[in-house]
Amino acid sequence: MKLKYGVVGTGALGGFYGGKLAKAGHDVHFLLRSDFEHVKEQGLKVDSVDGDFLLQPIACYNSAQDMPVCDVVLVCMKTTGNHLLPELLDPIIDEQSLVILVQNGLGIEERLAQEVPHASVAGGIAFICAHKVGPGHVSHLDLGRLILGLHTSTGNELLQQCQQDFEQAGVPAQLAENLGYIRWQKLVWNVPFNGLAVVLNTTTDQLMKQKETRELAHEMMHEVIFGAKNCGYDLDPDFADKMIRTTEKMTPYAPSMKLDFDNRRAMEIESIYTSPVQAARQAGFEMKKVAMLESQLRFIASQMENWKIRVSEG
Amino acid sequence: MKLKYGVVGTGALGGFYGGKLAKAGHDVHFLLRSDFEHVKEQGLKVDSVDGDFLLQPIACYNSAQDMPVCDVVLVCMKTTGNHLLPELLDPIIDEQSLVILVQNGLGIEERLAQEVPHASVAGGIAFICAHKVGPGHVSHLDLGRLILGLHTSTGNELLQQCQQDFEQAGVPAQLAENLGYIRWQKLVWNVPFNGLAVVLNTTTDQLMKQKETRELAHEMMHEVIFGAKNCGYDLDPDFADKMIRTTEKMTPYAPSMKLDFDNRRAMEIESIYTSPVQAARQAGFEMKKVAMLESQLRFIASQMENWKIRVSEG
Repeated sequence: MKLKYGVVGTGALGGFYGGKLAKAGHDVHFLLRSDFEHVKEQGLKVDSVDGDFLLQPIACYNSAQDMPVCDVVLVCMKTTGNHLLPELLDPIIDEQSLVILVQNGLGIEERLAQEVPHASVAGGIAFICAHKVGPGHVSHLDLGRLILGLHTSTGNELLQQCQQDFEQAGVPAQLAENLGYIRWQKLVWNVPFNGLAVVLNTTTDQLMKQKETRELAHEMMHEVIFGAKNCGYDLDPDFADKMIRTTEKMTPYAPSMKLDFDNRRAMEIESIYTSPVQAARQAGFEMKKVAMLESQLRFIASQMENWKIRVSEG
Repeated sequence: MKLKYGVVGTGALGGFYGGKLAKAGHDVHFLLRSDFEHVKEQGLKVDSVDGDFLLQPIACYNSAQDMPVCDVVLVCMKTTGNHLLPELLDPIIDEQSLVILVQNGLGIEERLAQEVPHASVAGGIAFICAHKVGPGHVSHLDLGRLILGLHTSTGNELLQQCQQDFEQAGVPAQLAENLGYIRWQKLVWNVPFNGLAVVLNTTTDQLMKQKETRELAHEMMHEVIFGAKNCGYDLDPDFADKMIRTTEKMTPYAPSMKLDFDNRRAMEIESIYTSPVQAARQAGFEMKKVAMLESQLRFIASQMENWKIRVSEG
């Protein structure tokens, strides 16, 4: 059986993962907004360490209404737009469809499964270094591995076939038995470094260089690991040490939330901070430092709102 | 008995409090650095809501070596310079002298009492709105009350006479039985608002306007109150609510640490954050959010060091 794929959010992730499937001969339909005209005329360009390619012609759309119903929909946009998903997905899914959220943070599959109860829902976690360098133009610098995990009780066959399609398209893809476990595991790094980079207006290497912030990041990692434990996910406590060592070796790096902040885009506070803090709190554990970082980020987001108003007024 | 007063650090506080004593006829000797030539030639000018005055001529010095031994020394500089105190005080105190630290934070009297064990040590807390507006020129806008408390077992008579001298000079001054209590009490406001204003680059009104930071400030106040309790100082838990209400009514305000940051001066992290965090920790209570703010401020201070190096290199 050949699956019909939809990609919602054709940025770096959607362009790369959807592009790899399309290049391998799969039937992939891309939803675009600002880049639509450009991609329709000039195609989707992916500069990749695994080999550059151009998709032209390409099945692209500027409205979900024009798209066919898909077997599998890869949602690759930022979680800050997830309130739009029920409307966006409505024309392209039916009760046979599987929606995979290739996004960051916690609680996103729970929410979508409530909003579109007729479809199957899964989550995807991307380990990739890629960014958009221009309209319809993605640069893939390193890694690319995808972990997929089912959220609903249905959709298992589609997810398995999707994993095989990715593997055949040259994307290392694994199936995880426990989606919550890998979502929490990814938070161990994302929580300290995304928020601290924004609040302290810096990059990972500077945070690592200074003793106080390196220790603070380490403590917050342990808070996340303990939060996960209280929610029933037994992460290895040594994982914090491992992540600190990994970060020490990284080249100076601006986490995605810092890039969003620098470019005046909405930050993923809800899925990376609010949902984990609330989940741990409901399980009886207060992640105090994570909650403090969340408050600081909420403040900065409110100031960004003011900037926008000033810009539009000025 | 007429006391001989010394003032170390003739900024807004030293200029105002020393100036009031001198204007009332007391024998006051001022130590100055950058403003010395100006004050020697043109005097010390105080624009005050209680009445402007000019002290000219004035007993001023640009080296402690030139000053007489004093009965009471008012130390009115920032705590970031306290490592200089043993050398600065050496020529102007003997075993009869009392040194009063009119400064912010915790642990400063303990340190000085170890460094100059032959002298008596007290602390002073100023409730005043005053700042330096130019060389030898202080502007006093509001308040002015002084609370004085003894740290050593000696020096009580001098402190009492000093309090009476202030009162006669028109400065409301009280004696506190428990210096530690009032030092912790002042931290309840200073800890959240100084640090958050620096880290989030903002003013008190903005922190109060946003729900998340208002609640964060309130939580940090409770941490300080609980830290104080663990150290043996029973502050009223309602004091946090009272401070929040007071701050709500304040005009937009940049706390002193924010002014230091904006002007690239050293911040009083040690006395306002490190000492209280360590004191509470030794008493068995971890002030987690205060400690996190301390770490963030240490990071910012390290970045300021880099700026200075860049400036001096550039």
